[in-house]
Amino acid sequence: MENLNVELGERSYPIHIGPATLRDPQWLRPALEGQRVAVVTNETVGPLHGAALRASLGHCGIREEPLWIELPDGEVHKTLTTVESILTRLLEARLDRGSRIVALGGGVVGDIAGFAAAIYQRGIDFVQVPTTLLAQVDSSVGGKTGVNHPLGKNMIGAFHQPRAVIIDTDTLKTLPERELRAGLAEVIKYGLIRDAEFFAWLEEHIDALRALDPEALAHAIRRSCACKAEVVAADERESGQRALLNLGHTFGHAIEAGMGYGEWLHGEAVGTGMAMAARMSERMGWLDTAERERAEALIRRAGLSLEPPTAVTPQRFHELMAIDKKVSAGRLRLVLLRAIGQAELTDAFDPAALDATLHEDTRVA
Amino acid sequence: MENLNVELGERSYPIHIGPATLRDPQWLRPALEGQRVAVVTNETVGPLHGAALRASLGHCGIREEPLWIELPDGEVHKTLTTVESILTRLLEARLDRGSRIVALGGGVVGDIAGFAAAIYQRGIDFVQVPTTLLAQVDSSVGGKTGVNHPLGKNMIGAFHQPRAVIIDTDTLKTLPERELRAGLAEVIKYGLIRDAEFFAWLEEHIDALRALDPEALAHAIRRSCACKAEVVAADERESGQRALLNLGHTFGHAIEAGMGYGEWLHGEAVGTGMAMAARMSERMGWLDTAERERAEALIRRAGLSLEPPTAVTPQRFHELMAIDKKVSAGRLRLVLLRAIGQAELTDAFDPAALDATLHEDTRVA
Repeated sequence: MENLNVELGERSYPIHIGPATLRDPQWLRPALEGQRVAVVTNETVGPLHGAALRASLGHCGIREEPLWIELPDGEVHKTLTTVESILTRLLEARLDRGSRIVALGGGVVGDIAGFAAAIYQRGIDFVQVPTTLLAQVDSSVGGKTGVNHPLGKNMIGAFHQPRAVIIDTDTLKTLPERELRAGLAEVIKYGLIRDAEFFAWLEEHIDALRALDPEALAHAIRRSCACKAEVVAADERESGQRALLNLGHTFGHAIEAGMGYGEWLHGEAVGTGMAMAARMSERMGWLDTAERERAEALIRRAGLSLEPPTAVTPQRFHELMAIDKKVSAGRLRLVLLRAIGQAELTDAFDPAALDATLHEDTRVA
Repeated sequence: MENLNVELGERSYPIHIGPATLRDPQWLRPALEGQRVAVVTNETVGPLHGAALRASLGHCGIREEPLWIELPDGEVHKTLTTVESILTRLLEARLDRGSRIVALGGGVVGDIAGFAAAIYQRGIDFVQVPTTLLAQVDSSVGGKTGVNHPLGKNMIGAFHQPRAVIIDTDTLKTLPERELRAGLAEVIKYGLIRDAEFFAWLEEHIDALRALDPEALAHAIRRSCACKAEVVAADERESGQRALLNLGHTFGHAIEAGMGYGEWLHGEAVGTGMAMAARMSERMGWLDTAERERAEALIRRAGLSLEPPTAVTPQRFHELMAIDKKVSAGRLRLVLLRAIGQAELTDAFDPAALDATLHEDTRVA
């Protein structure tokens, strides 16, 4: 069992991480007691973990039966229309301003439910119960909520901090193994960008994590959330820190887009993107060979590919990365590694090193 | 010309009030310079004041031509669908996170445009250019944005502070006289609830205000905004202050609903509601007769009715006020007057005084 407090002044909130936290009402109760509650989940997660949540809510001293809202599964439903349907349900049930939303599911459910909470009666409190490793280490911190628009992902949204985050590592037992691996990419990312000690710990515990050892999971999730919280807090003082969270993402987005969204999972693409960033960093003389090899070895042991799909040619990479470039005022910027635990955002990279990385005949280290 | 700074730490913003502030780019420029701008207005206000705004924007150093979004007029369009259509226009024009929205119009335009700004890419800055007296003294302070849902008014929204508010008193020249009177009700309200000195000033200047004297208007608007800013700030420390802004509103809502929304303007109903609150306060021995007479005289001189419509019977008042009651946990609470400049929220009122006020044969003082 691990706990972490995300420090945000009046909006500070706890993250509780461990096995069976969903079944033990002590973690949910402080955020819900005395209020009405709406649970937002989806048709996949609801049947798996809804009963445990419902039983727990029975001991949280909430007012009336919880309102249960089960969304269809899939990012295609992450729309304003879905949010409006949630708001209608809340109004039909006459939920007042003191009511709470509990989001039970992965990142998509959390984004939708969090945004509904952000705009219902100008904002009500919500609790995140993320059930995928990616959501646990990524969406638990930062307060981003929102939905997609036909013209762009996450283009509609709000910053809205949860009142508490309850992470039950048992939920990972029902997560498809492929999604677990994708989540591990983001965990490894925190080690690579700012925490060499955590990276070394991951080298020792990667097999335990893949075997769903509860203690190892709780530690890795806590450390990941703490890393993200530090980056987000640092960014409020000094702009640019937050960009480091995009290690592997520029290459990764090109893989996701080049293959067609949904073909590669986001985390899978980020894992490969981080390996590419490590190789490019080595070519530029930023990262020594031994550290590049350690980075690649850990990514591979997490079950992730070191090589981009051949279907995305170097030419296509260049085209897709140019779209990213447009977003940041004309210059392509990449997050590269100076060392394990030290990343840097730069537009002053060696184009030849990028080209060589895109053209290489990559071998698994 | 008057200026007021609304103090909200990092979110502090200026309100500039005076004639021709819309034509003088110095007021808009600091909030817009170097950025792309979308103007949100409606088909009534756009043709009246759009050209002045457009000319001003030409001297604000903004990037590219402003995007112009003209909504249909009327509260019936204050919906999430309208907001989504605005977001689509912003995305089609590829407006980035640094872009600004300028809301040109009354309260409905401000609420819609402010909410679109609140949720576009998780929040962009916006500037209010309110063109009705009601919006100038009410919506300029408090940060409330949002839209209606078929099941309730203002049920979807966010708190989102403007970056600046530009109030051009010249826009009141094209405002229907009836709407000017309705706006004056809210101005008088600030005097009644917390500012006896301002009330006395209004007694001297009510005719100048109705004649649209620019100096008198600027002073009255500034003082009203300052009163609201103080109430909102006080409410953050001590709950309940904000409720005083509802003087006359419980009676007023019953009039609006009883007559059918749109029949009486909100401000007209509030004016009559304040007169009823004053008479009820006198009956309870809270307000002396001379002050009740002063309150009624000023409301009457503003061109507002002291008497509710006979179509709303005492019985109907009781029914409609009971709906308000449900909202506040079962007890009817009213804002009443202890003196001019001193209001109090209470549920310990004399039911006989309420009944007598609803049944009286009201005579214009």
